[in-house]
Amino acid sequence: MSTPEAGRLSEILARSATRRDFLSRASALSLAIPAVGAALTSCAPNGEQATDSAAASKRAGGAAASGSQESRLPHNSDSRLDSAVLKQEHATPSSATHEATAHAAETKYHRYDPMLPPLPNGNRLQVHFHAREAPIRVSDDLVVAGWTFEGDIPGPIVHCRVGDTVDFTLTNESDIPHSMDFHAAQIDPKTAFRSVIKGQSVSYTFKPKWAGIFMYHCGTAPVLMHIGSGMYGAIVVSPREPLPAAKEFVLVQGEYYLGDTVNGARPFDFQKMLSTVPDFVTFNGRPNQYIKEPLRVKVGDRVRFWVGSVGPQHPCNFHVVGEQFDTVYLGAPPGTPIRGVQTFAVPAGGGMCFELLCDVPGEFPFVNHAFGHGQKGAIGILAVEG
Amino acid sequence: MSTPEAGRLSEILARSATRRDFLSRASALSLAIPAVGAALTSCAPNGEQATDSAAASKRAGGAAASGSQESRLPHNSDSRLDSAVLKQEHATPSSATHEATAHAAETKYHRYDPMLPPLPNGNRLQVHFHAREAPIRVSDDLVVAGWTFEGDIPGPIVHCRVGDTVDFTLTNESDIPHSMDFHAAQIDPKTAFRSVIKGQSVSYTFKPKWAGIFMYHCGTAPVLMHIGSGMYGAIVVSPREPLPAAKEFVLVQGEYYLGDTVNGARPFDFQKMLSTVPDFVTFNGRPNQYIKEPLRVKVGDRVRFWVGSVGPQHPCNFHVVGEQFDTVYLGAPPGTPIRGVQTFAVPAGGGMCFELLCDVPGEFPFVNHAFGHGQKGAIGILAVEG
Amino acid sequence: MSTPEAGRLSEILARSATRRDFLSRASALSLAIPAVGAALTSCAPNGEQATDSAAASKRAGGAAASGSQESRLPHNSDSRLDSAVLKQEHATPSSATHEATAHAAETKYHRYDPMLPPLPNGNRLQVHFHAREAPIRVSDDLVVAGWTFEGDIPGPIVHCRVGDTVDFTLTNESDIPHSMDFHAAQIDPKTAFRSVIKGQSVSYTFKPKWAGIFMYHCGTAPVLMHIGSGMYGAIVVSPREPLPAAKEFVLVQGEYYLGDTVNGARPFDFQKMLSTVPDFVTFNGRPNQYIKEPLRVKVGDRVRFWVGSVGPQHPCNFHVVGEQFDTVYLGAPPGTPIRGVQTFAVPAGGGMCFELLCDVPGEFPFVNHAFGHGQKGAIGILAVEG
Repeated sequence: MSTPEAGRLSEILARSATRRDFLSRASALSLAIPAVGAALTSCAPNGEQATDSAAASKRAGGAAASGSQESRLPHNSDSRLDSAVLKQEHATPSSATHEATAHAAETKYHRYDPMLPPLPNGNRLQVHFHAREAPIRVSDDLVVAGWTFEGDIPGPIVHCRVGDTVDFTLTNESDIPHSMDFHAAQIDPKTAFRSVIKGQSVSYTFKPKWAGIFMYHCGTAPVLMHIGSGMYGAIVVSPREPLPAAKEFVLVQGEYYLGDTVNGARPFDFQKMLSTVPDFVTFNGRPNQYIKEPLRVKVGDRVRFWVGSVGPQHPCNFHVVGEQFDTVYLGAPPGTPIRGVQTFAVPAGGGMCFELLCDVPGEFPFVNHAFGHGQKGAIGILAVEG
Repeated sequence: MSTPEAGRLSEILARSATRRDFLSRASALSLAIPAVGAALTSCAPNGEQATDSAAASKRAGGAAASGSQESRLPHNSDSRLDSAVLKQEHATPSSATHEATAHAAETKYHRYDPMLPPLPNGNRLQVHFHAREAPIRVSDDLVVAGWTFEGDIPGPIVHCRVGDTVDFTLTNESDIPHSMDFHAAQIDPKTAFRSVIKGQSVSYTFKPKWAGIFMYHCGTAPVLMHIGSGMYGAIVVSPREPLPAAKEFVLVQGEYYLGDTVNGARPFDFQKMLSTVPDFVTFNGRPNQYIKEPLRVKVGDRVRFWVGSVGPQHPCNFHVVGEQFDTVYLGAPPGTPIRGVQTFAVPAGGGMCFELLCDVPGEFPFVNHAFGHGQKGAIGILAVEG
Repeated sequence: MSTPEAGRLSEILARSATRRDFLSRASALSLAIPAVGAALTSCAPNGEQATDSAAASKRAGGAAASGSQESRLPHNSDSRLDSAVLKQEHATPSSATHEATAHAAETKYHRYDPMLPPLPNGNRLQVHFHAREAPIRVSDDLVVAGWTFEGDIPGPIVHCRVGDTVDFTLTNESDIPHSMDFHAAQIDPKTAFRSVIKGQSVSYTFKPKWAGIFMYHCGTAPVLMHIGSGMYGAIVVSPREPLPAAKEFVLVQGEYYLGDTVNGARPFDFQKMLSTVPDFVTFNGRPNQYIKEPLRVKVGDRVRFWVGSVGPQHPCNFHVVGEQFDTVYLGAPPGTPIRGVQTFAVPAGGGMCFELLCDVPGEFPFVNHAFGHGQKGAIGILAVEG
């Protein structure tokens, strides 16, 4: 334990008391998927490897030190940014860390505001996010053990224009290494999307080239675990030439794969994520939240839904009951619109823009029309007032 | 038991002897998904709530009575049309009602005619459907306990033009509340797509704005159960300016999630639907029906497939073996065609139009090329005669 | 046992010692899907039917002999090419034949070259493939019992232009009947894609009409088993008017559903395929192979990915970390490009073309952003050197 960081890291591993249970259970079920096994195996319970890794991470400022040992390891990351971090592979089988469950019972529910925030003044946007483990109340009777950006699931909606400059900083306040991958950035992920450990920050600047809704997420290995535990959100990039005036909403579909309650919070469960059958499917992190508190517009309004699916696995088959989209942009708006659409699938890791004109009043449910998932919470109401 | 309806409703609940078993089993399997649990919980076995609900439903003609009690309930509906109905939430864990299984052994198999029916004379179409529970023989050795429109799965194909007027009426002949959601209608679902109980009817009028194949389905909560038990079909809306002459077929892909045989019929199983691994995947409701009795055309014919996937969960990755589509319309025909396509995915709850020119004779299987599903019955033959 | 072929066929069946175990296990799990059961049932362990079938196959040169017996059988093929073969339905529950596992321990790993091979000289291409069962080492510690074209998974990449003539021959060197279905061919599958038994060949000629990446695969029933055991690959058809100069790569996503090790190789497992939860998801047949040995290009290069998903079940939600596609062709290039895309889903049985411009150096992971699958091996690195 030569560094404080290493100490913290080995604590994390020590806290994973479920690791052995998990492995033996996986084995009994013939579910011992090698990638997972390997990842878990690399969570060496002795401190030495962790110490080395943490030291290497500090030494190199996160730049990868490629080597023969590394190349023998399975890299189940989509960023492979920081080989020091990769060496320890924080494949925690659940998100139930101390911070993610502390004071779970006392956390309050709040509706996630789906309105697209206004554009920034000027052409430069400063965004500073903090990676935090925190319990999140997603319904009256459910608190999840979240890994978050800015303490919420999803993280905050970012809004800018094509060609604006985004200065982004991530500061990690969590015991587990984290990183940030913006799908709107064209940049070397090995450097920009590298993992940082507790107390450290990473900064980079990007200029979005294309309009659309783009996912952001933690890209630290195993990526499935970090996205699946809540580290995701959306940046909406508006075209420089404005689209037709509309009420604009952001809906980010995310799946929840949950284990048994720990300290009042249900943790996200890595093995269950691999099974791909979610417990809940949510818009903006809360099952059915916009049934309780609908989106409200007026007759005559054009409504623009910026819809992303962060998965981690499934598409959002977006549909509005009682309405049809006059326009869906499969690529960057305003390019290649298609017209007259009832339902279109937004792939996991992707985003699309859906528009409709509210010419009659009423209550129009918007749903993931794959109802095996819709029924698990991906339903809300668009209330059109006369 | 103040009303006959309420009596019938409580009978339904009484007949659901499996309810307790279901709940305890779900709990044992850690599958107690809250939305389901809540829906089932609201199926109160005492008659009082049912009485209230049925009374309210009659009183208000089905219009929703929003209130504080309602807002505390989980709404796992995509239409939320009739809060009276929602309050009792007929989340029967299987479709095995008395009517759905009566005389199952005597039901006859028939091929579902996939030909697009002719356009109506004039610009106005009267459509009157009846919601009925009935056993349906879908292959020589399989009868399912169906919830249907007009006694078949899928319900009848409706065909009209953009801008035609469709006068629609649904009469419910079933003990369970039902409703009708036409994806081709732009209308307030709270009123038009409201649930009606046995003996009641709901009527509405709509004018389709866009060409395409659009799903229709029962939207009564839980929607997954109603779609999954067979209450779906398709309306094809032709553009006013006719598309090129073609032999036109309608293929509606639907998944079957079945429980153990009850009275000679296999019921649709709600819990299995949530698992999203189907037993069968069908075109027009019968596994492999068009292998036995192919679609027949002649060399030189243009063939237009109107393909919908009603799910309830999965896309149809539509492909014709030995052919390529010269045209696929992702949105409303004739807009934005794409060319030269082997396979395209029609999302659950969506529809697309696929065209090919039959320039050689032969037997061309059409399939869902996601063969984990194709192998379960989503295969047919297009026979091109010289 | 009147013919050598029949002898071999019945040997196959005799070797399937697991058949009874399989059936009883399936039954116990309530997974006895009729199509499978029927297919297995038709693998009659007495030699007579096999003899008849093999004889019929020789007699008719593979042409289907339709009859009343045949029409009572479930046809779970997508080609139904050779009813003689269909009658015996080689629905082996796993791929662990003698040849597929022989000398498994001694097989060497090799990287599958993802570079698009050069176009042929002239307008005519001779392609002769051999169907072979063979163990394939797909990672240091994993050998699979493969059914292959040309001894590899995927089979070789074929490259030609729209309008070129492809003379194709398949010779079967395997005990199990096989066939070849090219999605780029417009031809009667009943004849061209018919199954052939060991020692026999089938030949046909086709002229691709459309540009794109098209799947090829064995279409012998049950198709799921043949695709799922490795009998797939891709043909890239370039437009006659060349696309912009680019470094061109071919990525074929395939899923692995594996049983327990037999003779040092893990067989592909039919029942697991039907469950649709894969053990591995691969680009070009090896989990994570292009993390170990990346794709290498230079700054300023345009990169064109020809991406196919052979499934057998799932799409590839293709994404490049740190990059955006300036162009995705949903249909045949150069038609209907969409612009500015982070992720698009290539359906199982389909293919799409993705382009980006490498304007910054770095290491850019390409992934299936459905991370429940990406995490199982569908990740590689695009290294852009300055």
